Amino acid sequence: MSRREKVSMSVIRRLPRYYRFLIHLKEKGVTRISSTELSTKLGLTASQIRQDLNCFGGFGQQGYGYIVSQLCDEIGNILGLSGKYPTILFGAGNLGRAIGTHMSFESEGFRLIGIFDNSPERIGMELANLKVRDVAGLEEFCKKEKPVMAIFCVPRTAAGELAEQLYNLGIRNFWNFSHYDLSMRYPDAIVENVHLNDSLMTLCYRISDQSAK
Amino acid sequence: MSRREKVSMSVIRRLPRYYRFLIHLKEKGVTRISSTELSTKLGLTASQIRQDLNCFGGFGQQGYGYIVSQLCDEIGNILGLSGKYPTILFGAGNLGRAIGTHMSFESEGFRLIGIFDNSPERIGMELANLKVRDVAGLEEFCKKEKPVMAIFCVPRTAAGELAEQLYNLGIRNFWNFSHYDLSMRYPDAIVENVHLNDSLMTLCYRISDQSAK
Repeated sequence: MSRREKVSMSVIRRLPRYYRFLIHLKEKGVTRISSTELSTKLGLTASQIRQDLNCFGGFGQQGYGYIVSQLCDEIGNILGLSGKYPTILFGAGNLGRAIGTHMSFESEGFRLIGIFDNSPERIGMELANLKVRDVAGLEEFCKKEKPVMAIFCVPRTAAGELAEQLYNLGIRNFWNFSHYDLSMRYPDAIVENVHLNDSLMTLCYRISDQSAK
Repeated sequence: MSRREKVSMSVIRRLPRYYRFLIHLKEKGVTRISSTELSTKLGLTASQIRQDLNCFGGFGQQGYGYIVSQLCDEIGNILGLSGKYPTILFGAGNLGRAIGTHMSFESEGFRLIGIFDNSPERIGMELANLKVRDVAGLEEFCKKEKPVMAIFCVPRTAAGELAEQLYNLGIRNFWNFSHYDLSMRYPDAIVENVHLNDSLMTLCYRISDQSAK
């Protein structure tokens, strides 16, 4: 068993934050940082950061700290950001348009190669330098272009059928903004959910709970 | 100490999912559900759901299950969804536009009353039935309208100064899409972060980790 197989999701979820912060330091021209300074800035303990990085072999030198650009590259490699996984996006409504144009896929490990919708008003529209395609041509597209990741910016009602089709076409990786529960239906798929409504309702709970005190 | 003060964040984060699922059942015309059925559909154990609901006094009857509309209303009340907290949104770029138009704030406890930007091309633009306002008029607006929540769809570089201004105007609740770490700077603020880049990078890690096996 390789060392990586043991890494917990909570460690993995901290890596992007380290990465972002190191990019920020690099942009500011910072070349070296001590583990204490890094931890203070991130609101974690130095030992936590060391433990996290040790999951991947450990970096930095006792008493010297980390070389920013080096640690940044290493974490980028661990995250697999050079993967450039071919990706397709479903739903060219408000959310799909924002995700397609707002995200910098290339610097986060993906390459957006197709956008699909089933609405005649949206098909043919230009978005993120791509023309929105008719979902009717999906099978042909997938067989030719072999996307490995699908982004779901479609309503829950549309997601089930679409997921089934994509799963049958071999796609196992999903960035899911819909309320359709992909993991329940396809336990072997890799799913990252972004549930904006849940986040908003959680915030609502916390505000009303606070006001009640 | 009231019962609610002890509720853990992991319980709270499951409530919106229960709520969404119950709304879905209601729409399908389901009037009653057993705790076993509810748990199967949600991929949790019946005892987990009972425990979660017990944090708020417990609902349902042994051997009878839950009345869907009643449980739905109860969870909506717990979440405080009738709060209609006045909310302002910052940044009318791609993401801000999507959040402003895509989200149904009213049904999730909030009321969008203002959208702000500092770019002359965006100020005056119509968005979610509101005209985008110049951030220069923020102080006056806040004193008059008393918003309690702010949504950050601005770049990290703009977030720091804006947060300081809002904090000084008394705003303590944030839905944060920026990479600015609000919780570190304002430990007494209630912050829900949505870090789309982190989610995407985590997905990238999981895909490349899987391919390496």
